[in-house]
Amino acid sequence: MLGNSFGRLFRVTACGESYGDALVAIIDGCPAGLEISDAEVQTELDARRPGTSPLDSPRQETDQVHIFAGVRDGFTTGAPLGLIIYNVDRHDIHVKQYHDVKDLIRPGHAEYAHMIKYGKFADWCGAGRGSGRETCMRVAAGAVAKKILAGKGIEVLGHVAECMGIKAKKMDFAGIKAHYRKNLINCADEEAAEKMIERVLEIKEEGDTAGGVVEVIATGVPPGLGEPVFDKLNATLAHALLSIGAVRGVEFGAGFAVANMKGSECNDIPYVDDDGKVRFQTNNAGGIEGGVSNGEDIVVRLAVKPTSTISIDQQTVNMADMKDQKLAAITRRDPTITARLLAVAEAMIRLTLLDHLMMWRGYDAVQDIEHPWS
Amino acid sequence: MLGNSFGRLFRVTACGESYGDALVAIIDGCPAGLEISDAEVQTELDARRPGTSPLDSPRQETDQVHIFAGVRDGFTTGAPLGLIIYNVDRHDIHVKQYHDVKDLIRPGHAEYAHMIKYGKFADWCGAGRGSGRETCMRVAAGAVAKKILAGKGIEVLGHVAECMGIKAKKMDFAGIKAHYRKNLINCADEEAAEKMIERVLEIKEEGDTAGGVVEVIATGVPPGLGEPVFDKLNATLAHALLSIGAVRGVEFGAGFAVANMKGSECNDIPYVDDDGKVRFQTNNAGGIEGGVSNGEDIVVRLAVKPTSTISIDQQTVNMADMKDQKLAAITRRDPTITARLLAVAEAMIRLTLLDHLMMWRGYDAVQDIEHPWS
Amino acid sequence: MLGNSFGRLFRVTACGESYGDALVAIIDGCPAGLEISDAEVQTELDARRPGTSPLDSPRQETDQVHIFAGVRDGFTTGAPLGLIIYNVDRHDIHVKQYHDVKDLIRPGHAEYAHMIKYGKFADWCGAGRGSGRETCMRVAAGAVAKKILAGKGIEVLGHVAECMGIKAKKMDFAGIKAHYRKNLINCADEEAAEKMIERVLEIKEEGDTAGGVVEVIATGVPPGLGEPVFDKLNATLAHALLSIGAVRGVEFGAGFAVANMKGSECNDIPYVDDDGKVRFQTNNAGGIEGGVSNGEDIVVRLAVKPTSTISIDQQTVNMADMKDQKLAAITRRDPTITARLLAVAEAMIRLTLLDHLMMWRGYDAVQDIEHPWS
Amino acid sequence: MLGNSFGRLFRVTACGESYGDALVAIIDGCPAGLEISDAEVQTELDARRPGTSPLDSPRQETDQVHIFAGVRDGFTTGAPLGLIIYNVDRHDIHVKQYHDVKDLIRPGHAEYAHMIKYGKFADWCGAGRGSGRETCMRVAAGAVAKKILAGKGIEVLGHVAECMGIKAKKMDFAGIKAHYRKNLINCADEEAAEKMIERVLEIKEEGDTAGGVVEVIATGVPPGLGEPVFDKLNATLAHALLSIGAVRGVEFGAGFAVANMKGSECNDIPYVDDDGKVRFQTNNAGGIEGGVSNGEDIVVRLAVKPTSTISIDQQTVNMADMKDQKLAAITRRDPTITARLLAVAEAMIRLTLLDHLMMWRGYDAVQDIEHPWS
Repeated sequence: MLGNSFGRLFRVTACGESYGDALVAIIDGCPAGLEISDAEVQTELDARRPGTSPLDSPRQETDQVHIFAGVRDGFTTGAPLGLIIYNVDRHDIHVKQYHDVKDLIRPGHAEYAHMIKYGKFADWCGAGRGSGRETCMRVAAGAVAKKILAGKGIEVLGHVAECMGIKAKKMDFAGIKAHYRKNLINCADEEAAEKMIERVLEIKEEGDTAGGVVEVIATGVPPGLGEPVFDKLNATLAHALLSIGAVRGVEFGAGFAVANMKGSECNDIPYVDDDGKVRFQTNNAGGIEGGVSNGEDIVVRLAVKPTSTISIDQQTVNMADMKDQKLAAITRRDPTITARLLAVAEAMIRLTLLDHLMMWRGYDAVQDIEHPWS
Repeated sequence: MLGNSFGRLFRVTACGESYGDALVAIIDGCPAGLEISDAEVQTELDARRPGTSPLDSPRQETDQVHIFAGVRDGFTTGAPLGLIIYNVDRHDIHVKQYHDVKDLIRPGHAEYAHMIKYGKFADWCGAGRGSGRETCMRVAAGAVAKKILAGKGIEVLGHVAECMGIKAKKMDFAGIKAHYRKNLINCADEEAAEKMIERVLEIKEEGDTAGGVVEVIATGVPPGLGEPVFDKLNATLAHALLSIGAVRGVEFGAGFAVANMKGSECNDIPYVDDDGKVRFQTNNAGGIEGGVSNGEDIVVRLAVKPTSTISIDQQTVNMADMKDQKLAAITRRDPTITARLLAVAEAMIRLTLLDHLMMWRGYDAVQDIEHPWS
Repeated sequence: MLGNSFGRLFRVTACGESYGDALVAIIDGCPAGLEISDAEVQTELDARRPGTSPLDSPRQETDQVHIFAGVRDGFTTGAPLGLIIYNVDRHDIHVKQYHDVKDLIRPGHAEYAHMIKYGKFADWCGAGRGSGRETCMRVAAGAVAKKILAGKGIEVLGHVAECMGIKAKKMDFAGIKAHYRKNLINCADEEAAEKMIERVLEIKEEGDTAGGVVEVIATGVPPGLGEPVFDKLNATLAHALLSIGAVRGVEFGAGFAVANMKGSECNDIPYVDDDGKVRFQTNNAGGIEGGVSNGEDIVVRLAVKPTSTISIDQQTVNMADMKDQKLAAITRRDPTITARLLAVAEAMIRLTLLDHLMMWRGYDAVQDIEHPWS
Repeated sequence: MLGNSFGRLFRVTACGESYGDALVAIIDGCPAGLEISDAEVQTELDARRPGTSPLDSPRQETDQVHIFAGVRDGFTTGAPLGLIIYNVDRHDIHVKQYHDVKDLIRPGHAEYAHMIKYGKFADWCGAGRGSGRETCMRVAAGAVAKKILAGKGIEVLGHVAECMGIKAKKMDFAGIKAHYRKNLINCADEEAAEKMIERVLEIKEEGDTAGGVVEVIATGVPPGLGEPVFDKLNATLAHALLSIGAVRGVEFGAGFAVANMKGSECNDIPYVDDDGKVRFQTNNAGGIEGGVSNGEDIVVRLAVKPTSTISIDQQTVNMADMKDQKLAAITRRDPTITARLLAVAEAMIRLTLLDHLMMWRGYDAVQDIEHPWS
């Protein structure tokens, strides 16, 4: 397996499985002098933690994080950060459950592909590295990025904008911030939230699971971020977000609606605001034109599929004998992961923005450019 | 600017602007012994070429490609390939037109962001590197990837699935292949195509432009392709596709529809087919589970915004005096780029699949694994 | 700080400081199905371990390694390996000693550069990440590479070839293997070893430290390994070896002697051996021509400087008041690190060879080439 | 083939063979606003050009460079630079000569390894990509880096310090600069230069070739450059320098002499100079401690082997029939490449320093650090 690193200058490398001893992230490229504590990182992790809501999996992982490298006396030293979380809820009963079905393909899971890719050595327990459990290290790393970005005036927050046919009303950054994480489903429109929760609980009763849409907004991003060709800001963000297990689509600004728009409707018209700054009358671009930020809020939405593990019997294949077989209902599962995925999406966006900022500052620093326009 | 390379083992690096002398791509990682000619690459380029349809820009670029490095006696030598295309249609009249509006922000273009990022040195002519012109080198490189993939049984083809409210009927790979590029809009559903063309021509008459949706299918992809965490196959594909200028969203399989699906509806159920192979009853996953291909066709859709350049006056800002100003209608433009973008999307998917295949083969080659399941 | 990763496909990322809680390495790109245990990795670590010889530092680090991720039931799963070593010998007395001199530049150490680079946040304890302590994770990762390479018939072994004027006689791979690690200085010429040890102990008595030359030979490397331009095999090996703290020079084959050789003396003349294989009469190239292995043994020598920490008072500068000051003699130190560095050099060479092998196999795998000559 | 890119932020990618149409370099990461012309790049290329001295190959390549992308109105735009050099001296007579011996291994060349690696598709003409001809694009790219570094007060110059037993006297940066490129052998000690030239001409008469040592000094490098672990400044420089075809060894500062030094001799003692700055009494470290620059001049030496092509018959193997055969004397060759290689070495050092500077500035820019010591 490759691909356990993300980023170029602010670079996170992670390892650890769902039912292994521990998960670790190493963060390269963190500047010296950042004040950071286990507690600050923990705050972000607690937002992703399972077992705290009837909408989540009952798995009891406390996700206690410890920064074991890169910090002295409360400040980063310039050395790579090392963060560790020990898995605590991996009791024999659950391991046995996974072992019992180790030759069965779990529909909607990565395991069939892993069986083919890694053969009989593929980790059969809790989906191994293919489990969403790995995302806790993304959140931990994102907490460090969040703090650095805050120092640059960049904030990233989101909410659940859609769930099983119920859509939240359109909200801007201030609106989301004002109602941030006020309810179990993490939807900033509290009226819609109530309906969403009700609907998910109904579906949970059926033994089933629910999909949704997460919307995240990044504000304070200076114009100029992103590289104009292969490493466009939206391309890198899409990479970051679709690397989260359950995400099936990503769109920016007007998104898929552009398919039915004319140029005269879609183009965001610039004007000079009262402070003499260029702004745009609309934000169909979602804050990114030609792969580079234009100073407007970056608005991104991601489609989250319903959790694959359901409490309903499913038809499947036993790889050991290549026969069709029934996979029994599984009770330990998330009725929806949309609400928990929010923290992961925010983290990935933060990591991406910070990495781009460092790269840009890097090559820009060696030349003194007159910027008559900026 | 960074980000002019794509891929890790099969790695394309490109340069060249809309109104510069030439565009060049260097392809690293191409194996020796591949028979390849200028003509083969040209075939793909001709599909992207402007000036051949009333739906395209009238710019007359012949896009004649020459492989100037890496080939001897018709076969690749193992050395990096060098491909060059000279710009031919860059007459003074067009350069002057760009110079006249060089301080104006063109709505929907990357130029404002470039002005901020690169200051007064930003290329004012034809959007420079920010122009879609650079995509011809993607198509050229993709032609090489196409040939290698064909040797491995992998084919990638697409069509325009939606345009200004008109949707093509659902089509599988065989269907698209049977009706591939039969009409100006490149839609495989010929009935829908007719309506789309009619609609775009109407919009063209208004001086406006039209958006659309491109759908691409990759068939023959073996299960196991893609890396399970940050470099998921869909994440890398999304990166590749959103790096194409006008793309605003990407979705796989059921895509955004998963937001309203239950797990029991969304999960693709496996079965053993008549050849004793595992297949899936549905393909909501779009051929990728947990970031790894599962042997089903990879199905991806991308939202293409309407071309920004329109033949209608638009309000804008003059950066030189920071005053509002009118930008006059521009006649030389693509009524829609959706049809031309298809070739670019196919190329980027081919580059991504090949690169993943090489990486996988690379780390897999050093270990002899018993694969009882494969 | 950047640069805590090494390799492209077989990629090691590490963190941890001399006096932090623990050191961790994450290995990406390890194929599934490799049988590996803590004990096997431990064997290599024990060769690097301090505190076991009068030539080494008395610091008592047991360097007990644990593979906490990527292995199930004794075999790699394809997931990234996670390896951890806890620091155990970091008693208050030593921390206090470092704190007492935290503003003094220790001659020959990285600390002055770190003070400038990271400011007052630079880790003052035991040189932090700049300490040779980090090399234990290189050795741990190298142990995994060693096992994979063994399966491909590649072996890498070395010895101390020179120390304070005493040179070992010229030895080939078989000779080094026959006398591998038989004495404290790890010199395969036992007669020379005796003299070296005697000389180092004399120098130790003076409170001083000794330099040396390590020579390593890789045998069984197939011809064709290495990339012909920027990633030549010798270039990557030199990168790997000069990334070890105390190394001041690297040479291959005839090395610096080529400065005084004629082409007719330096060229290795090929012939066909009794098995019908191409071999070379001499090995001035050290097994690498034009950056690519030629099938002969790879022979590399590295110059190791004497340990900077000495038990003799030294003049220095106090950064707090920018005044000259005396740095008192330090007793806890390695009289020579040459013998211990051998394990690190072998590990870095193994990591480099394996990574090159994977990359080569990767891009080569997608094309079926007729090789009439191979 | 991989490895045709060098650098991470300031990243050069090149292609082109000895007897192909042209060589091209693409430079990614060049900031906007740099004034640069073909002529400036040409100046550096002229220093590497063959055919101008009795010590060089008589091949007549004018090496006329043209920047075809990334520059408008004389200034870089932020877009990647594209540089092209057409091969002009590739007449049929020479192509035929190469074709006649295409199955013979040329002793000391990369070709045997290429034959094995790429099979019968390996480029048989003029060593293809394995030829030193590719280094002209390194020099071209280095010319751009030189200009940027000059703006930061960093200068890199070298000379031939040793050749066939004749050693130049020890010279500092000022000394080399005062006598820079004053003679055919490019040795700043003019007395030694005379002897070297005489000796090389004698060897030339014999039909043979001569090795040498190039020494390069970088001055003005701020303390703090380089990453402390795998990407140490000396490690990256060694990578850069050993990627030049004929280089067999690299050493920094005291280099291999450290093998026979005590710590008390080798440690460079710091002091505060009259300007209140930390300096070191000696420079055994060659300006780099722990992989990070310490503000002293960076001093590096590289061993250059004698040109492999000689005008003396040599025994070899014919790969077509696997029989021993004689390779006839070749007259078109460099009596020594040491003098020409100097320009390449300087270029590679400049590229490396600039890339490190950009990376450092990148991650440092996002944090405001108090540096009481700097």
